[in-house]
Amino acid sequence: MDVKKTFDYQRKSIVTYGNKKLTAAFDQNGRLVELELDDNAPQNAKSIATMIDHTLLKPDATEAQIVVLCKEAITYNFGAVCVNSYWVNTCAELLEDTDVKVAAVVGFPLGAMSTEAKVFETKDAILQGATEIDMVINIGELKADELANVAHDIRQVVRVAHQYDAIVKVIIETCLLTEEEKIKACLIAKSVGADFVKTSTGFAGGGATIEDVKLMRAVVGPEIGVKASGGVRNLTDALAMIAAGANRIGASSGVKIVEEERNQ
Amino acid sequence: MDVKKTFDYQRKSIVTYGNKKLTAAFDQNGRLVELELDDNAPQNAKSIATMIDHTLLKPDATEAQIVVLCKEAITYNFGAVCVNSYWVNTCAELLEDTDVKVAAVVGFPLGAMSTEAKVFETKDAILQGATEIDMVINIGELKADELANVAHDIRQVVRVAHQYDAIVKVIIETCLLTEEEKIKACLIAKSVGADFVKTSTGFAGGGATIEDVKLMRAVVGPEIGVKASGGVRNLTDALAMIAAGANRIGASSGVKIVEEERNQ
Repeated sequence: MDVKKTFDYQRKSIVTYGNKKLTAAFDQNGRLVELELDDNAPQNAKSIATMIDHTLLKPDATEAQIVVLCKEAITYNFGAVCVNSYWVNTCAELLEDTDVKVAAVVGFPLGAMSTEAKVFETKDAILQGATEIDMVINIGELKADELANVAHDIRQVVRVAHQYDAIVKVIIETCLLTEEEKIKACLIAKSVGADFVKTSTGFAGGGATIEDVKLMRAVVGPEIGVKASGGVRNLTDALAMIAAGANRIGASSGVKIVEEERNQ
Repeated sequence: MDVKKTFDYQRKSIVTYGNKKLTAAFDQNGRLVELELDDNAPQNAKSIATMIDHTLLKPDATEAQIVVLCKEAITYNFGAVCVNSYWVNTCAELLEDTDVKVAAVVGFPLGAMSTEAKVFETKDAILQGATEIDMVINIGELKADELANVAHDIRQVVRVAHQYDAIVKVIIETCLLTEEEKIKACLIAKSVGADFVKTSTGFAGGGATIEDVKLMRAVVGPEIGVKASGGVRNLTDALAMIAAGANRIGASSGVKIVEEERNQ
């Protein structure tokens, strides 16, 4: 598979979100060289906040910290909170009657949990109140080119999630993959009905890059989502990811991002 | 709880494993200053190999690498292989009719998976052929001093594992804990019937230390096991952990450790 010839790396990107217009220019290597946000956006323009999954996944997160996460999500109107499955019930109760969704990670962060266990964790999280599932693929099976196994693993999770009207974001863990593997993972995820492809867990030593987001968007097209996660720490990072094709941002610094947006 | 007064940090330790005698001396801070292995051990002395869980947990491990792990475990007579739950079935088939056990990690490495999902993953791994379960505690609940929740989470896993005659090692992730939290975690694990306490996942930035192993052994006493894991890279490390009180070693460099033992 000659991947380099397959996709057109656009040099300039114009994205609208809400009523805002974002223009970005990239160099030949896909690095961001210019970023412009339309200053004439009307007052009722939608904030970037609704595109952010407000995220807290560290192993020593306490209930008190989870409560703060949810309160911030309400205050700042984030699209979702993203948490480990132990905390889903707590979040669902705190976010009842709000627009903030609960996203649960599954098979996280290694992705090497058995498919059956991923399916159970998915269903359990949904029954506790999650409506979004962020699952990690089996990276070893992808490396071994056992693509049917990679597909089966994702498909089973998608199937149970869709039965309960939850969406699935498929984490491909870009920092561990070659370009060809990234493309294969995105194609497989899309083909088995995933709702999003997502760059990173944030636990494998690397996060979202502009180049990866552009590649992932080029591969999956406009029909499904692309979530950029890992290392998105400020508004410039977030806007660059959106310009590159992301329509969802996973970040633990969502408050900072929205504050920066307000102060523009 | 004044933990410093509660436990006696022994300065010298004499441990026998198989027919070998190991003498270790520690300084006031628990650091190893002298280590002696009895050279007169008889020819039929048991190797350190049977105390080693031969471990491969990285997310991009392939089936081919899992096969090598199992073959090495047979060749070197390791006590067990330790793998992610996706690979349990493969290992169980390869290790059928051998003395090598299959240990599966559960809720790994963050420990923040829902209790129900940990229980399911445990049962699923056992039905696939695991006879040992290495589970991670909910560290956030420990930090918040919600000890009943920590206990419940472990107890549910122990209960299902013991129903199927599997043993449970409880990973407390020492590098994220204060000394008091380490003690509480060990006491809870022992009180709910765990078979081992284990230092580390190897994914949280720190591994086993001699001081932690000594503390854990002092807390749990001789009735249950202590597994030292994370950063045990050679024979000296392994012997120091055993001298400090460990009776199981988790390592990805088990082959090197046993080769060093043979060349002594």
